[in-house]
Amino acid sequence: MSKVNIALLQHSCQAQTAANFAKVAGLIAVAARQGAQIIATQELFKSRYFCQHEAYDLFKLAEPVNEKAATVKALSGLARKHKVVIVASLFERVAGGVYYNTAVVLDADGKYLGKYRKMHIPDDPQFYEKFYFAPGDLGFKVFKTRYADIGVLICWDQWYPEAARLTALLGAQIIFYPTAIGWLPADKKVYGERQHASWETIQRSHAIANGCFVAAANRVGSEPNPEKGKEGIEFWGQSFVADPYGTVIKRASSNKEEAFIVPVDLAVIETKRVQWPFLRDRRIDSYNGILSRFHEE
Amino acid sequence: MSKVNIALLQHSCQAQTAANFAKVAGLIAVAARQGAQIIATQELFKSRYFCQHEAYDLFKLAEPVNEKAATVKALSGLARKHKVVIVASLFERVAGGVYYNTAVVLDADGKYLGKYRKMHIPDDPQFYEKFYFAPGDLGFKVFKTRYADIGVLICWDQWYPEAARLTALLGAQIIFYPTAIGWLPADKKVYGERQHASWETIQRSHAIANGCFVAAANRVGSEPNPEKGKEGIEFWGQSFVADPYGTVIKRASSNKEEAFIVPVDLAVIETKRVQWPFLRDRRIDSYNGILSRFHEE
Repeated sequence: MSKVNIALLQHSCQAQTAANFAKVAGLIAVAARQGAQIIATQELFKSRYFCQHEAYDLFKLAEPVNEKAATVKALSGLARKHKVVIVASLFERVAGGVYYNTAVVLDADGKYLGKYRKMHIPDDPQFYEKFYFAPGDLGFKVFKTRYADIGVLICWDQWYPEAARLTALLGAQIIFYPTAIGWLPADKKVYGERQHASWETIQRSHAIANGCFVAAANRVGSEPNPEKGKEGIEFWGQSFVADPYGTVIKRASSNKEEAFIVPVDLAVIETKRVQWPFLRDRRIDSYNGILSRFHEE
Repeated sequence: MSKVNIALLQHSCQAQTAANFAKVAGLIAVAARQGAQIIATQELFKSRYFCQHEAYDLFKLAEPVNEKAATVKALSGLARKHKVVIVASLFERVAGGVYYNTAVVLDADGKYLGKYRKMHIPDDPQFYEKFYFAPGDLGFKVFKTRYADIGVLICWDQWYPEAARLTALLGAQIIFYPTAIGWLPADKKVYGERQHASWETIQRSHAIANGCFVAAANRVGSEPNPEKGKEGIEFWGQSFVADPYGTVIKRASSNKEEAFIVPVDLAVIETKRVQWPFLRDRRIDSYNGILSRFHEE
């Protein structure tokens, strides 16, 4: 049973979190009817991308992420009802002042398998994540689900070959990347095309280097900047799945809501890794410098 | 002075090593006349790709690689004459039974700056490199040349994000990849296109992840299989230079000999790294697992 149907949910978000949750519940039902077995949401799917500015009152969007938490229980119910694995990205509150950008994984019987906390936290104009999220403290993870062994990394993590490598070395057959990336209108004309190309290319490279599947779910739509007179972000969608050769099997549009299904054959992982045995030849005796920020003379 | 002209030499090889060396000397002269400042050869440019089969008598192709060695001195003379930095790939003999796949770097005044020994050694049908080359024992390197700080990695190294990362962390502004990669005729139809795409994609990803330039020089032409009745290798050329966004600035043809010049602006490295500060957010506290082959339960 090496065949699995992945589904990625790509959608826009409005201000009301309940409406966003209802939309995702609907998309999960649609995907499940079409045969989806592992379904991943985009990053922070319950809300607009609030990190566009730094505001104390936005911490009220955070919620507990554990077996007994309301949203996790609701997602667990959907997983059990539809017999699907769900990877969902949430804004986690642990205590006042302790918040994470977290993804939860629920097995196809609704069982809570655990969570991953985003390890690499960005901070750029209109992506002020270091204000909201502490860096993840759980390390890299693999989750053994009914349909596949999967890893989860989140958005900015996608720029780090180390993150993909470590997740693959733990045994992940598919790495999911819930994402919220878009263009700032001022940058789009000059950098837009190459930014998107960089984003897709680096994730395809993780599939190539590690001989695994990569699945990235990104949001769509323009979200206003809460600061008056400033432009917002145009999220570029284009969620995709790449196979272990780095080939994009399917890519969503840049502006439409989609719950799209991608059938994959996990047996390709072994075939590819035998043909191109990169893991065999890793020079683990010589990678120590990876543990330094930069070599200073 | 952040502008530099890179040149990559892409050519076919014949059985006589002297003829191949003469061809490269000619290409270096041509490139220098066109303004080249740093010139890189393809992998093992002095010979056909002898690793297509395992034969004891092919070790006679190996030669010393140091300041006093004949080929290094000849290359040094060319570097001094043309005022160009030269990165050249050679089959190194240290002693009977001790051979490496090595690249030497000569500064624009002919000075010997050192060598890099290929760290990741492949072994696939018709790429029997583990028979010929011991794994490199010098680690990853950066060479401070007159025109730029450069790193050198060789062919199979290109599949390893660790190698590019470590070289970039040492300060390399440009990573050169002397290469000998091609299609086996039996594979080309099924895997040819995606193999090439994988090869280019992973190297572009190193430019993106590290915010540096990447320059790969690959050979062209079909070389016969020394074993009777077996097909040889069709080297796919397509040498290229990618900028720190992973954009391919220039790509050579798949079948023509070329000495092609690519002007690059090293100032782009700083611009890109400030825009997308990936190095800042590396989780060096959590990358320890990179030093393991695979996580076994």
